[in-house]
Formats: sequence, structure tokens, C-alpha cells
Amino acid sequence: MTDDTHDPARRSWVDSANRLGCDFPIQNLPLGVFVPPGDNRARVGVAIGDAVLDASAWLPGETLNAFCALPAGQRADLRKEWVRALEAGAAPRPLFAQTDCRMLLPTAVGDYTDFYASIHHATNVGKLFRPDNPLLPNYKHVPIAYHGRASSLVVSGTPVRRPNGQLAEGKFGPTRELDYEVEVGLLLGPGNDLGSPIAVADARQHIAGVCLVNDWSARDVQRWEYQPLGPFLAKNFGTSVSPWVVTAEALAPFWASAPPHDVPVLPYLQESPSGALDISVEVWLRTPAMADAVRMSHGQFKEMYWTPGQMIAHHTSNGCRLRPGDLIASGTVSGPGKENRGCLLELTSRGTDPVPLPDGETRTYLQDGDEVTLTAHCERPGFARIGFGSCSGVVLPAIGLG
Amino acid sequence: MTDDTHDPARRSWVDSANRLGCDFPIQNLPLGVFVPPGDNRARVGVAIGDAVLDASAWLPGETLNAFCALPAGQRADLRKEWVRALEAGAAPRPLFAQTDCRMLLPTAVGDYTDFYASIHHATNVGKLFRPDNPLLPNYKHVPIAYHGRASSLVVSGTPVRRPNGQLAEGKFGPTRELDYEVEVGLLLGPGNDLGSPIAVADARQHIAGVCLVNDWSARDVQRWEYQPLGPFLAKNFGTSVSPWVVTAEALAPFWASAPPHDVPVLPYLQESPSGALDISVEVWLRTPAMADAVRMSHGQFKEMYWTPGQMIAHHTSNGCRLRPGDLIASGTVSGPGKENRGCLLELTSRGTDPVPLPDGETRTYLQDGDEVTLTAHCERPGFARIGFGSCSGVVLPAIGLG
Repeated sequence: MTDDTHDPARRSWVDSANRLGCDFPIQNLPLGVFVPPGDNRARVGVAIGDAVLDASAWLPGETLNAFCALPAGQRADLRKEWVRALEAGAAPRPLFAQTDCRMLLPTAVGDYTDFYASIHHATNVGKLFRPDNPLLPNYKHVPIAYHGRASSLVVSGTPVRRPNGQLAEGKFGPTRELDYEVEVGLLLGPGNDLGSPIAVADARQHIAGVCLVNDWSARDVQRWEYQPLGPFLAKNFGTSVSPWVVTAEALAPFWASAPPHDVPVLPYLQESPSGALDISVEVWLRTPAMADAVRMSHGQFKEMYWTPGQMIAHHTSNGCRLRPGDLIASGTVSGPGKENRGCLLELTSRGTDPVPLPDGETRTYLQDGDEVTLTAHCERPGFARIGFGSCSGVVLPAIGLG
Repeated sequence: MTDDTHDPARRSWVDSANRLGCDFPIQNLPLGVFVPPGDNRARVGVAIGDAVLDASAWLPGETLNAFCALPAGQRADLRKEWVRALEAGAAPRPLFAQTDCRMLLPTAVGDYTDFYASIHHATNVGKLFRPDNPLLPNYKHVPIAYHGRASSLVVSGTPVRRPNGQLAEGKFGPTRELDYEVEVGLLLGPGNDLGSPIAVADARQHIAGVCLVNDWSARDVQRWEYQPLGPFLAKNFGTSVSPWVVTAEALAPFWASAPPHDVPVLPYLQESPSGALDISVEVWLRTPAMADAVRMSHGQFKEMYWTPGQMIAHHTSNGCRLRPGDLIASGTVSGPGKENRGCLLELTSRGTDPVPLPDGETRTYLQDGDEVTLTAHCERPGFARIGFGSCSGVVLPAIGLG
């Protein structure tokens, strides 16, 4: 539900927040955990324009987990207080420049789940591995997911080291098929007790905020290891998370219709319309030879086959416990066109069709020194543009096998 | 390495610890987290006979994570202090009766990994699902594993609710194929930084202790959901963990030769001999109609294809971070004979060959009210018998689908 905090006419006394195209206008107010300059203490902050407001008076602690645990009504009340503190006319307060702050992971993630919710991604990947049988028979019935590793989550800006691994029978060494995956991450709200499912109609209240996730993947390792229990070392060497969490309240104007299903879903997954979130995501690549990053793809989160509410309802349908601050990533956000393919595996047809880059460079998979940056935003007529900041990481060379 | 703490001649001033067949003699001294009667504060304790020694003076806090983080040398020093405090001749101290204490999970598990290390289990299961191709081509090269869900771990004694789930296309309801899996759990020691592998030669130092794990599974859900990303809701509705952690120090006498491999492994997995742990595990079932539990199977942990050291070396070979107190479960401990099959899927050939029980009962899969109990012990001439206590859980009926 939108309210007057979403009024696009609102302005802030922080000038940078009022600039056209700013990710963090007063209608956004994402939360993050930052360490201010000259200090060592992590604290919760609100991003406004290019600045950070210390929010530790409202939210003590070094993570957003306590915020996530609040009922949706209390989260909305806090948003109103921050709007009052930052809107034009309010007394200016001390702020930190974002560029001076060190960002940390927004929550202590108890468990990290990765879905596979884009039918375009599943079909594209399926075609490469199983040309005769691209989309598995369960896809349109079961929201497929697996558990990732919480200990491998790193905040945007952390370099990611190319992993060593088994690339095929008898072959161990640095992955030759290092890939990114652009994903949307849901940070869980109050959650549930073990044994108590969350109904699809209630699921949206359990999303505290949304961030960006780069699920770095080693495709050669994945191909060799994934049968029969799924990806493991191909994924758990590093997963990047954007530092600024766009709250569920800021996203209220951007719920949209999910794409129609041609196969009916079971009752526990049947959702009222507008279960999708309208977020545009982009992937940018900068090689060491490039001055500026180039856009590799753009995708629409609202085109995912499974919605956030369906993911949560499915995840808890067996009683599985979700805790405040847990991370549910969507899986690669891909769309119908080549320009919508959210990972190199798809974009280069498994490394067979290199992507041309400026100045004659090409890529099949990532090379050392490449920097991948994810961005995202929401736009809708009558509302302010809401940005997600960015999620980036540079590839470091593999460690030697001394 | 064994030392004089393993001397089988040692006796305790706690009489019950000196009884033949006792799981917790003075040579064992497993650790757990308990809440004593008439109190609410969880604390660390040492099990001795049928009693508990409050160990919070040595190990403050409400979990064993700080203990796990200690270097192996410091863990050994603590063991010596507990031996001194509890051996015959020392001044008696106040103890709690184990039956009066409420046990909690031993560690706050950051991440829970489940391996698939028994080639007997993998072959038996493979035969049922892929008769033409029982053992996948990667099995003898890659120690297969997947991530489980930390939030679903429960301590022994917690009832486990039969999950609802998608049993097949268009079918949602309580699982009809609820199974147990007997596994051995490693609780991680100091661990590693992200990006820094643990060499197989060092891996054993990163095991702080060992426990029992029942990886409850819904086989119908698993069959329908597991392609292509592995098991998810078939597993994450509940996983039981035994409360008493047998320390690495207590297990020192029980390292043994691993079974020979007919296919050479890559150098990063090549281990000196005696990488296996000689632990006998048993599964017991008590239906509501039975007065006493009946033994369903027994297995030898030392017969696993992959050893604890190989699991840790493989897990971190890509730089994946292991944190103190993390749980690595072995996968079902099965052996070559029918009496060694560690889950009902194997034991009943996928539900087609019911197991006879006393008084004319039979089981294919678990029924509501059934209680599954895992036990384990180590025995070797010249050393005291070391027990693991038990890991049990009763099946509750599924919640209604209101």
C-alpha cells in the first residue's frame, strides 16, 4: 500500500537526494550497515542522496536483523520518522558521505536460499545441457531452489577470488568458466517457527527488504559435480550482496502483474494478481583494458515465473523455518531476448559464442581483473524513481596450487 | 595422538561412569549445552556417567562455538583439566543428573553441509532410481555434497512433524515416504578464511567434535523436486542432532584405515593412511505398538568412501569458508549388507519390500508416532569404549491443509 511517504513531490534538505536519476531520493531511504570514517563501530544507516544518516538511535546493533524482525507496521512507522527527519524544511543533521564509509553485509544471514525462478534462464540453460529436454517436467509446478552458503556471502566491493576446483575427471585447477549471475535478493522479515508454513496470502509481509545478489558460478565445476545433489563448490566460493537494502515499504508502488502461467499451480501457490515486483536489473562489465563499464544485459524481475510470495509460501510449505534477515535470492533474472540473458553461460551459449566488447575485446567467461557490477531501479509514472545502488566485485587470480 | 587421558584403567569418582558399557566413561567426556533443573540459563557441560558437570567456568557462553574455535592444543589442555576434576580421588563436585537437564543444540551452526560419502548408500539409492547407471561417473572423483538448512536443525528429543509437500505433479499433501538417514556429524574447529583452502594433511585439526545426525527425508518430495538443483524441501523440515559432542581428543584412538579406492584420487584429496574414523552406528525404531525399540541396521563409519579429512579438504578446495561450530554431516552410513542399510529407502527397496517388525507389524516408510533413535560407539582393544549417547525423534502427524 502506498501512502504519502511515496509522494513524488517530496524533497529532502539533502540536495543530492533531489537530483534527477539519484538512486536514493527521500522516497527510497534504503538501510545498510556502515562504518563511518575514523571509527570502527558498525552501525545502521539510512542512505539519502550521496550521504548516510546514522540510524543507530532508532536501530541499535550492528546488523539489520532486528529491523527485519519487526512487524511490517513498525517498519512503516520508522520510515515515517526518517522521512520527517530528512524532508525539506526539517532541521539539518550531521551526515556522512557514502564514499567515506565502509559498508558491511546488511544482515547476519542465518540461511541463504537460491531459487531458479526465471523460466527464460531455466530454458536457456536447459537447452545448453539437455537440448532434447530443456525445461524439466517439474519446472512449472515446483519453484526449484537449493541452499547456498551463508559463510560465503560478501558485501559489494569485496574482490572475488577465482576458485580452484575439479573441472572434469582428473583435472583440478582454476576454473576456466567463471561466470556471474544477476539476481534479486529478498531479506526476510519476521519469518516462522519450524513446522508452521506461511500462506501465500501472508508471504509479502515477510519481506523486509530487497537487495542485489551476484551468484558467482564456476560452470565447469558445476557441470562435473552437480549430479545428483545439485551445485556445491561451483557456487560457495563467494556470493556478492549489495549493501543498501531497499525496504518493502519503499517498494510498495512497484508491485505488478506476474506473467500468466499456462499450467495451473497448486492451491498453496495460488496468489492474487500483482504478486510480481517491477524491478529493472542491469549487468555491467569492466575489463582491465576498459575505462568505463559496458552494459552486458538488462532484465525485468517482474517477468520471473515464480513471484516472491510464491517463493516464500513454497519454501515454508513443509514447515521450513525462515529467520529474520535470511536471504532468498531469485535465481538469474533473464528475459526472452538475447539482451536479457543474466549470465555469461546463457549470453555466450556456454562459451561458444563470445560477446564482443569495445576495442576488439571479447569474453566467453570472466578473466582475472574483470569487474562485474549489478544495478537496478524501479520506475512507474506518478512515483519517484527508486534505485538499488550497485553490487560489484573484481575477479582476483586463483591462488597457486603449491 | 593418544595420551594418558585415554588410559583404560582410569576411573572416576562418579560411579555410573565406571559401569561396563557406559557411553560416557572418564575417557570420553563429551560436551553439550544444557539447562539445569530450576534454571533457565543454558551453559556448557561435560557428560560423565549419567551426570553432567557444569563446565561454564572453563567455557562461558551458551554454545560450544567458542570451544570449537580453540586450537587443538587448547582443546586437549581443557580435556586434561576435566580428567583431573573427575578422576577417582579428586574432590567430588556438584553434578546434575542428565535426566533432569534439558539439552540444547551444541553449537549455533552457521552452515550445515551434508555429504554423500557412503558408496554403498550411493549405489543402493542409484540402483533404485537409475538401474542402468547406479553410480554416477563423478562419484569416485568428487566427494558429493549439498548445503542443508541450519535453521531446521533440532536437538535430539524434539518431535519431527511430517511435512506436507508436492509428492508428484498436481499432488500436495503429507509425505507418504517419510524416512530417516543415520549420519555422523563433524562439528568444525577453527575453520578458514574465505579464499584459503585447508590442506587434507591439516584437515583433521579442524574437527572439534563428532555427533550423530538424523537427516529426515521425504522421498516422494525428493523425487519430484530434486532435478536439477538437488534436494530442498525433502530435507529442510527437520534434521536431528545428538546433544553430546564427542571431542576429537576422545576419538584419538579410533582413527583407522579407509577402504582402498580402485580409482586414484586427485592430489588435493590424497591422504596418509588411517584417515577413517572407526565408529559403529545403529538405528533403532519403536512404533507406538512396541514396548521396546528394535534395531533396524548397523553400519561402520570407517567404511565410508570419503574420509572426514577428504570432506574438509574438498569443501574448502575452492576457498569456501568453514566457521567454528559449522556442521558437516557424512551422508547416510550404509554398508555392503542388507543389515547395513542406513535408511528405509534402501532397506525396503524404495518401499517395495516391507521390513518385518515384532508382533506382525511391518514398515515401508515411517508412520506417525514412530520413534527413531540413532546410537553409536567406538571400541578398540586396549582402550575404553566410547559412546555417543543417542539422537532420537518421534514423528508427529502433518498439520492439516485448512
